[in-house]
Amino acid sequence: MGTALIVLAAGQGSRMASDRPKVLHEVAHLPLLGHALAAGAALSPERTIVVVGHGAETVKAALSGLDARADVARQESQDGTAHAVAQARPLLEGFEGDVIVLYGDTPFIRPETLQAMVEARRDGADLVVLGFEAADPGRYGRLVAEGDQLERIVEFKDATEEERAIRLCNSGVMAADAGTLFTLIEQVGNDNAAGEYYLTDIVGLARAGRMSARVVVCDEAETMGVNTRADLAAAEAAFQTRARAAAMENGATLADPENVHFAHDTHLGRDVVVEPHVVFGPGVTVESGATIRAFSHLEGCHVAEGCVIGPYARLRPGAELDRDVKIGNFVEVKSAQVDAGAKINHLTYVGDAHVGARANIGAGSVTCNYDGVFKHRTEIGADAFIGSSTMLVAPVRVGEGAMTGSGSVVTEDVPDGALALARAKQVNKDGLAARLMAKLRAAKKRSAN
Amino acid sequence: MGTALIVLAAGQGSRMASDRPKVLHEVAHLPLLGHALAAGAALSPERTIVVVGHGAETVKAALSGLDARADVARQESQDGTAHAVAQARPLLEGFEGDVIVLYGDTPFIRPETLQAMVEARRDGADLVVLGFEAADPGRYGRLVAEGDQLERIVEFKDATEEERAIRLCNSGVMAADAGTLFTLIEQVGNDNAAGEYYLTDIVGLARAGRMSARVVVCDEAETMGVNTRADLAAAEAAFQTRARAAAMENGATLADPENVHFAHDTHLGRDVVVEPHVVFGPGVTVESGATIRAFSHLEGCHVAEGCVIGPYARLRPGAELDRDVKIGNFVEVKSAQVDAGAKINHLTYVGDAHVGARANIGAGSVTCNYDGVFKHRTEIGADAFIGSSTMLVAPVRVGEGAMTGSGSVVTEDVPDGALALARAKQVNKDGLAARLMAKLRAAKKRSAN
Amino acid sequence: MGTALIVLAAGQGSRMASDRPKVLHEVAHLPLLGHALAAGAALSPERTIVVVGHGAETVKAALSGLDARADVARQESQDGTAHAVAQARPLLEGFEGDVIVLYGDTPFIRPETLQAMVEARRDGADLVVLGFEAADPGRYGRLVAEGDQLERIVEFKDATEEERAIRLCNSGVMAADAGTLFTLIEQVGNDNAAGEYYLTDIVGLARAGRMSARVVVCDEAETMGVNTRADLAAAEAAFQTRARAAAMENGATLADPENVHFAHDTHLGRDVVVEPHVVFGPGVTVESGATIRAFSHLEGCHVAEGCVIGPYARLRPGAELDRDVKIGNFVEVKSAQVDAGAKINHLTYVGDAHVGARANIGAGSVTCNYDGVFKHRTEIGADAFIGSSTMLVAPVRVGEGAMTGSGSVVTEDVPDGALALARAKQVNKDGLAARLMAKLRAAKKRSAN
Repeated sequence: MGTALIVLAAGQGSRMASDRPKVLHEVAHLPLLGHALAAGAALSPERTIVVVGHGAETVKAALSGLDARADVARQESQDGTAHAVAQARPLLEGFEGDVIVLYGDTPFIRPETLQAMVEARRDGADLVVLGFEAADPGRYGRLVAEGDQLERIVEFKDATEEERAIRLCNSGVMAADAGTLFTLIEQVGNDNAAGEYYLTDIVGLARAGRMSARVVVCDEAETMGVNTRADLAAAEAAFQTRARAAAMENGATLADPENVHFAHDTHLGRDVVVEPHVVFGPGVTVESGATIRAFSHLEGCHVAEGCVIGPYARLRPGAELDRDVKIGNFVEVKSAQVDAGAKINHLTYVGDAHVGARANIGAGSVTCNYDGVFKHRTEIGADAFIGSSTMLVAPVRVGEGAMTGSGSVVTEDVPDGALALARAKQVNKDGLAARLMAKLRAAKKRSAN
Repeated sequence: MGTALIVLAAGQGSRMASDRPKVLHEVAHLPLLGHALAAGAALSPERTIVVVGHGAETVKAALSGLDARADVARQESQDGTAHAVAQARPLLEGFEGDVIVLYGDTPFIRPETLQAMVEARRDGADLVVLGFEAADPGRYGRLVAEGDQLERIVEFKDATEEERAIRLCNSGVMAADAGTLFTLIEQVGNDNAAGEYYLTDIVGLARAGRMSARVVVCDEAETMGVNTRADLAAAEAAFQTRARAAAMENGATLADPENVHFAHDTHLGRDVVVEPHVVFGPGVTVESGATIRAFSHLEGCHVAEGCVIGPYARLRPGAELDRDVKIGNFVEVKSAQVDAGAKINHLTYVGDAHVGARANIGAGSVTCNYDGVFKHRTEIGADAFIGSSTMLVAPVRVGEGAMTGSGSVVTEDVPDGALALARAKQVNKDGLAARLMAKLRAAKKRSAN
Repeated sequence: MGTALIVLAAGQGSRMASDRPKVLHEVAHLPLLGHALAAGAALSPERTIVVVGHGAETVKAALSGLDARADVARQESQDGTAHAVAQARPLLEGFEGDVIVLYGDTPFIRPETLQAMVEARRDGADLVVLGFEAADPGRYGRLVAEGDQLERIVEFKDATEEERAIRLCNSGVMAADAGTLFTLIEQVGNDNAAGEYYLTDIVGLARAGRMSARVVVCDEAETMGVNTRADLAAAEAAFQTRARAAAMENGATLADPENVHFAHDTHLGRDVVVEPHVVFGPGVTVESGATIRAFSHLEGCHVAEGCVIGPYARLRPGAELDRDVKIGNFVEVKSAQVDAGAKINHLTYVGDAHVGARANIGAGSVTCNYDGVFKHRTEIGADAFIGSSTMLVAPVRVGEGAMTGSGSVVTEDVPDGALALARAKQVNKDGLAARLMAKLRAAKKRSAN
C-alpha cells in the first residue's frame, strides 16, 4: 500500500516580518518547503498534497522550481491544522493507504524518521505521532502516554503540573490510514479560545474510538521549526554544522569550517581543500583533489580533479571545468566549458564560451557575449594564447594555437596558429607628460587661491 | 532645568598598546567616545564637556568629526576621576541643572538608563549612581546600600568579606546637581595608595552631609568598558550581536548573522537579504527587498528597492542606486548616481559619474575620472550601451541610447543614439603565433641546457 | 651534552580519509610535522630523526620544504611506537646525549615544555614522560605515580577502576639518555592484542630495572593530536585563537578576530588595523600603523608603515610595499617592489615589476609579463601616471614622470616625462546605435514569434 504526504504550508508567518510566504524562506539555498518535500520524497509517496493559504499563488509558483510532483489544495481561511488537512481530502479521493502530515516550516525531519513512522503503522498502530524528548519542554504540547499507547496531546496552557513535567513533546507530524485520518478529522471541534480546529485533537478521538496510537520518537533537532528570522538563521546554522561535519568525514579539508557555507546539494570529493570564506550556491560538484581557495563563490558548476579555484574566483551556473584547470583572482566564469589544463588567472570575464585545453587567457580579457539584445558564443581553441585585455566580440572563434595581441579587439575569427592584432601604433610625445602635469598643477594652485 | 554631560576621556589606555588615544578606538566604525556622546545626546544636554588629557589634540580633532557640540576641558595630570571632573567646572560656570558624568571608554550605556537617572534626581535623590548586578563581581567596586539609600562605594581591595559578597557593583556613572557635584568634589582627598582623587568618594561625603544617594540599576552589558584590544573586540562583538538581532527583528534575512558586519548607523529595510561575508561601513541605507550578495562591501551609500548587489561589489561613499539597479562582481562604484534598472555587471570602475536608467555598462569599463590632479565627471545617458572595456575619459558624455564599441577610448562626447568607435582594424597574421611560440620554446630549451 | 629528537611520522592516519600522509596535513599553512619540528628546534638538537612509513617518499620530499635538517629513518611495517623509535637507532650510532621522542601529528607541544623535560633529566630522572591533567580523561592511558616516581603507564582498557579515576594522562612524549632509551626498547615485547611494541612499556621496564622515572606536566591543549579532519579543524581553531590573542596583545586591532586567519609565521606591528575577512598566508609581515581592509589576502609579502591595503587586495609572494603605498580593490600584486606613496587603486594586475615612488596606476591596467613561455619585467618610474587600462607589454620601462594614455598598449620604453599614446581616433557614427538596436529588437521579436 502506498503513502501520501500532506504538507501544511498555508501559514502567514507574521513574525517573519516578510512579504514572502514563510515556507519560501530558504535554508542552504532551498526553501523550507523544499526541505520538507525532500524528506517526504524519500518515502516515494504516491501523492503529495501541499496545502497553501497565505501567498498561495507565490507558493504554487515556487513549487514548480522545487521539482516536486505535488498537487495544491487551498485553505481559504486559517481555521487550524485539522481544517488545513481537511482541505487535502478532495484531492485524495479514492486514495487508500497511509497519509503522513508534514509541515512546510519544519525542514529537518529525517527520511529515516518518517520510515519509522510508516513501520509503526505496519506494526498495527492506527495513528502514529512523532514526538521528541525536549531538552527544555517550555510551552510545547505534551504527549501523554500510558504503556505503549499515546492517550492524548495536551497543550501547555491546558496541562496540569504533572503533565507539564512530561518531557516527551509533540512535533505535530502524524501518520494514519487515509480513511481513519479524515474520519477522525471530521469529529474535531473548534470549541477553544482561538475557535480553531486542531489536528492534535484526533489523538484523543482515536483513543475514545478504541483505536491504537503510538509515538515514534525522533531527535529534537529534527523538529526545529521556523517562526522568526532568528529561527531561520538558527536553522541555517544547524544545517551548516551538519554539512560541514559530513564534508570532513568524507575527506575534505575545511580549514575553518564556520567560514565555509554549503548549499543543500553541494558535493565535495575526497582530499578537496576548501580555504576559509568560501560560499557554495546550489548545484556544485567539486571532484577529488581540487582546491577552492579563499573568497571564492561557486554556483551551478562542476570542478574536476586537480583544479585550483581562486582566491576571489566566481563560478556561475554552467561553468564546467575539466581537470587541472586554474581559475584565478577576480575571474568570473559563466556557461562555459573549460578544457583540461586551461588557465584563466586574473581579472577576466568568460561567459558563453568554450576554452580549449591548455589555453591561457590573459589578465583583463572579456568575452563580449552580449550585444544589448542577444547573447553570442566565443570559441577558444586548444593551446591558444589570449593576450591581456583582449576583447573577444562574440560570435567569434580563436583557433588552436592562435594568439591575440594585448589590447586587441577581436571581431573576426582567428585561424589556427595565427596571430591577431588590432592595435594602434605607440607614439611617445617627448616632454608632454611633464608639461601637462605642470599645467594641471598650476591650475590647481590658481583654483586654490 | 537642563542637563549637562561631563565625559571623561583623558586616560592613556596603556593596555591598548597603541599610539592612538583609547577613546578613539572604534566599535562599529564609531570611536568609543562617539558612542558615549551619542548615548548622552539622547538627553538633549544643554552643555557637553569632554575632559581630555593623553592625546588631547588628537581627541579634540576627532570631536569635530563626531558631530558633537562639545567643549573641551584639559586635565594636565592624571590625578583621578574626581580631579578629571573638576576640570570641567570652569566651563560650567553659571550652569544650573543636573550634571551626568560619563566615560569615553564605556560605549554602551543606553539613553533609557540615563533617563532613569535623571528621573531619580527629579524624585529627590541628591546623588544618583548607576549600578549593575554583576554575574561575576570580581574586583569591581561594590555599592553598599541600606534600604533605598546608597551608603558608600567600596573598592574591592578595601572591602570586607561581607561587602565582597555584594553583587551590586559600581559603573562609575553619576548624576547630581552641578552645585552639589562640585561642592562634594572639593571635599575629596587623595589619601590613598595611588595618591589620586576618586569620584567614588563623593557618595560617602554626600551621606555624611545628610544628602540622599540612590542607585539606578542597569544591565551589566551596558557598563562594558574597554581597556585592551581584546576588550575592544568583545565590545565590537556585543554591538554586532545586538545589531544582527535588530536587523532580523525588522525583517531582514541574514543567512549567517555572524558573517555580516554592521556599522553603528546601518539601516536595512524589510525583506532585505544579506548573504554571508558582507561588510557595512558607516552611512549605509538599504531599502526593502534589495539583496546584498556575498563578499560585498558598502560604505556611505544608498541602495533602493529591488537592487541586487554583488557578489564582490564595492559601493563607496556617494554611490546612490535607484530601484532595480544591478551591481555585479568586481565592480566599484563611488560618488555616482545610478538610475533605475541600470546594470554594471562585471569588473568595472564607475566613479564621479551619472549612469542613466537602464544603461548597461560592459565588463572591464572604466570612468577615467582622474588626470593626476583633478577629478572629472562622466555622464552616461539612459538606455546607453557601453561596450566592454570602454575607457570613458572624463569629462565626457555618452548620450541617451548611444553605444560604444568594445575596447574604445572615448574622449569626446557621443551624441544621443550614436555609436562611438575608437578601434584599430584587426589583422590576422597567418602562422605567426605558431612560429613565435616555436621560437620561444626553442629559446627555453637552449636556456635550460 | 646534546639533545636528539626522534619524531614519529609513519602512521597512515586512515581516519583522515586522505591520500596525503597525515603529518602533512596543515595547520596555519604549516604541516603538522612542521609544527612538531619547530617545537623541537627550539632545543637546538644536534640530530633530528624523522621516522617515516606510510607515504614515506612524500614525507621525505616535504621535509626539504620545512627547512629542517632532519635525517629520515624508515619503518617498513607499522609494529608499534617502540618499534618505530628503534628504527632511528642506526642513525644515532655514536650519539651520546638525551633523546626526546615527539609525534608528527601532535603540533602544539611548547618549547618551554620540552625544556622542562630536559631539565628533569638534568635533575637526575632516567626517564621523563610528558603528562597532562585531562579535563575528561576518557580513554587516554593513565600515568600511575607513587610519590615523585612514575611507576607505569596503563592503557585505559587494562586499567582498574581505581586507575581509571586518575586524571594524569600520557602524552606519549618521552625523554631519556640515548643508551637507556634503546636498551629499554630492546626489552619491550609484543605480547598484546595488537601484537605491537609499545613505547609506553619502557616505563615499567625502567622501574623494574631500578631506574627513576618522572612526569613533567603540561597543559592539555599542548597534547592535542590530530586523527580526523574534525581534529584538524579543531587544531586550526586552537592555533588561530592563540594567534589572534597574541596579535591583539601586541597592539593590533582585529575588529572581528574570528574572521581573521593567520599563518604560522604572520607578523603584525603595533596599531595595525585588520578588518574582518582577511586571510594571511605564509610569510607576511605588516609594519606598524598599516591597515588591512576587509576581504584581503596576503602571502609572502612585506607591507611597510602607513600602507592601506584593500578591500579585496591580493598580495602574492614577492610583493614588497614601501611606506604609505595604497593597494585598492580587485588588485593583484606579485613579485613586485612598490615604492613609497605609490597608488594602485583598482582592477589591476602588477607582476614582475618595479613601481616607483608616488606613481599612480590607473584602473584596469596590466603588466603583461608572460609571453606564453617566459616572464618579463616592467619598470615604472617615480611619479609616473599610468592611464586606465594601459597594457604594459614587458619587458618595458615607463620613465619618471611619464604618462600613458588610457587604453594604450605600451610595447616600447617611454622616456622620462614623455606621454605615450597608442590609440585609434574616436569616430561617432550618428544614429547608428539607434538603428542597430532597433534591428536587434526586431530580430528578437521575429525569433519570439
